[in-house]
Amino acid sequence: MNKKRVAVFRKEHFNAAHRLNNPDWSQEKNLEVFGKCNNPNFHGHNYELIVQVTGEVNPATGYVFDMKILSDIIKAEVLDHFDHKNLNLDVEIFKELNPTAENIAVVIYDILREKINENLDLKIKLFETERNYVEYPA
Amino acid sequence: MNKKRVAVFRKEHFNAAHRLNNPDWSQEKNLEVFGKCNNPNFHGHNYELIVQVTGEVNPATGYVFDMKILSDIIKAEVLDHFDHKNLNLDVEIFKELNPTAENIAVVIYDILREKINENLDLKIKLFETERNYVEYPA
Amino acid sequence: MNKKRVAVFRKEHFNAAHRLNNPDWSQEKNLEVFGKCNNPNFHGHNYELIVQVTGEVNPATGYVFDMKILSDIIKAEVLDHFDHKNLNLDVEIFKELNPTAENIAVVIYDILREKINENLDLKIKLFETERNYVEYPA
Amino acid sequence: MNKKRVAVFRKEHFNAAHRLNNPDWSQEKNLEVFGKCNNPNFHGHNYELIVQVTGEVNPATGYVFDMKILSDIIKAEVLDHFDHKNLNLDVEIFKELNPTAENIAVVIYDILREKINENLDLKIKLFETERNYVEYPA
Amino acid sequence: MNKKRVAVFRKEHFNAAHRLNNPDWSQEKNLEVFGKCNNPNFHGHNYELIVQVTGEVNPATGYVFDMKILSDIIKAEVLDHFDHKNLNLDVEIFKELNPTAENIAVVIYDILREKINENLDLKIKLFETERNYVEYPA
Amino acid sequence: MNKKRVAVFRKEHFNAAHRLNNPDWSQEKNLEVFGKCNNPNFHGHNYELIVQVTGEVNPATGYVFDMKILSDIIKAEVLDHFDHKNLNLDVEIFKELNPTAENIAVVIYDILREKINENLDLKIKLFETERNYVEYPA
Repeated sequence: MNKKRVAVFRKEHFNAAHRLNNPDWSQEKNLEVFGKCNNPNFHGHNYELIVQVTGEVNPATGYVFDMKILSDIIKAEVLDHFDHKNLNLDVEIFKELNPTAENIAVVIYDILREKINENLDLKIKLFETERNYVEYPA
Repeated sequence: MNKKRVAVFRKEHFNAAHRLNNPDWSQEKNLEVFGKCNNPNFHGHNYELIVQVTGEVNPATGYVFDMKILSDIIKAEVLDHFDHKNLNLDVEIFKELNPTAENIAVVIYDILREKINENLDLKIKLFETERNYVEYPA
Repeated sequence: MNKKRVAVFRKEHFNAAHRLNNPDWSQEKNLEVFGKCNNPNFHGHNYELIVQVTGEVNPATGYVFDMKILSDIIKAEVLDHFDHKNLNLDVEIFKELNPTAENIAVVIYDILREKINENLDLKIKLFETERNYVEYPA
Repeated sequence: MNKKRVAVFRKEHFNAAHRLNNPDWSQEKNLEVFGKCNNPNFHGHNYELIVQVTGEVNPATGYVFDMKILSDIIKAEVLDHFDHKNLNLDVEIFKELNPTAENIAVVIYDILREKINENLDLKIKLFETERNYVEYPA
Repeated sequence: MNKKRVAVFRKEHFNAAHRLNNPDWSQEKNLEVFGKCNNPNFHGHNYELIVQVTGEVNPATGYVFDMKILSDIIKAEVLDHFDHKNLNLDVEIFKELNPTAENIAVVIYDILREKINENLDLKIKLFETERNYVEYPA
Repeated sequence: MNKKRVAVFRKEHFNAAHRLNNPDWSQEKNLEVFGKCNNPNFHGHNYELIVQVTGEVNPATGYVFDMKILSDIIKAEVLDHFDHKNLNLDVEIFKELNPTAENIAVVIYDILREKINENLDLKIKLFETERNYVEYPA
């Protein structure tokens, strides 16, 4: 039963405000491209975040990765910085990076990649709404 | 089969930013009472809205209320004003009323009550998150 | 702990085709009122059916109603007649009654009311889609 | 906007083992009545618990009841005693009371009723599975 | 942050009637193979359709593909032809192709593949019910 | 339309009790590693099981694999042995193998792999809770 590669998934969520905008563009072009998502006063979402960690099952524990530890890492590294925040104003990296679901997923991946041992693969799925979501790496 | 009273439900959603705050209180008291929800830069939610209309089934149509018409009313009267907005800044009534789920549900009820014939009962259920929701009238 | 009134709910589902139409009306009026639901070749749904039975908890079993027995009754009386059927063509009562969600719920109530002891209250919730559903009695 | 009665709902969950059995009955009768749920070595569920509190909206906060405080009460009074437990063996009251969904809901109601101010109404919804759930009081 | 490959997903739905049947087989063999799904009067489903598009994130927009445009394409090319239809009778290709979930997914893929730039990968997930679904290409 | 490779998915569920424990470790170490999941009296879950079978579409049926047959196999080989059981006490293999979600998924894969023709690929997804789940092979 040892040395089987299994993917484990932990689902978390955070609630945040954001606005899509490209400061290099005119107001008209931003409105044309981003539509309602360009509202200058922001709007918001209940983001559902699924973190996937893939590796071999540890024969002593039967775990690939302790889900309690994974949850604690996600909380400390992501949720404490993103939950109940304005992504554009309160999160440093999004002051210069448009907080689309795609970019948020890549940022979360980069944050968590440093905290998860490199012999484990990592993948991020992020639901902006029930009908719009992204996955990285693809 | 006529004259049976049936409740019909239509589920819609909108994405909005908001902030909980009482301007009569100090910053400290607001933080103490509203916690993370008091973040001055706002946060946001995917609000799920369920509108319940109760009345007799029309024997000619088999409908209590045409769901397409109900959906159009909700869109014109609520979603077009709340979706992809900042409730505190973009919606007139919440400039002076704290946009808690309770207050948003009452406001939506009052808006729709004027558009739905008074021989029909009306009830609003509003999900702020999957784990926190409200119903009015109770 | 005895004699407390509790509501118990059993969720089942069936997949059926239907068409909304009033034979007393012209084709034009039917199309105007029922829109896409009037398609002469039918369309269909995954109906989710929730049967609620309310009564006192039996102190010997801790049950209001055995959910296995409730499920068997729903299967024999409703699902075996509605599942994978064309409601308009295969179910006798809907040859003359428009199979709206409202009417289907009332029909299911009338069927089950005869099979559930009258000291128990009965209520039907029927989801035609995730966004459109009805409840009877209201 | 004051003095409107609104219901607020908080959803929590716990994972527990249980077994349905009436010690006054023979093994045969228990198996006949409770079927697979009578397995002597227990089975288990992810219980979803929804606590509904109904009252007037406080005009200063816009809250009926602070959801964070409600969540803390549920955690301290219910989850800390039920989550990751064997209801029959680890929870005192179920040593003599059959832990059906009906009885668990009544027990949770009685526990929380003492912690929630009596001018607020209380209702418990408990999902044993996605397809079987109960509500008390009915 | 540029040139990262991200998958984006858009969920849509349509309601349709269908019937499974192979005209080369006897009525008995069709009933044996397709069971209830062979009902000559059709049955129906709420189909949930998830379209996955994978490519590089555009640094100017932060998008792989504008979800509004993707939704419009799905609506024009798929939903307008499948929603509230009888797949066997109203959709040309299924007059000769058995409308199983597998075949419907392949057909939707072929339709959308022509409308999505070829430097983007495309995948279709189709839920016939909550418990039966398919993905193409696998 | 022939010879396209499609993945088909069937979702089933079972309710079971379990306990995480490594008999080679002290009670202290088990408690430290497995926390609440080490409760000696067990706890339980509603396990959601998704079985994915991938292969070519049979042109005569339009099926990769008959979902009714797949469901019957899962029932006979997995559910009849796991549902309403105590995994540690009632299922032979888990008397010596820690019943983590990872190990349960691998065991289910090994059971089903023998029953599904080898020209079809097989994958198991197992939800222990809505927030914790695993997939094998990864």
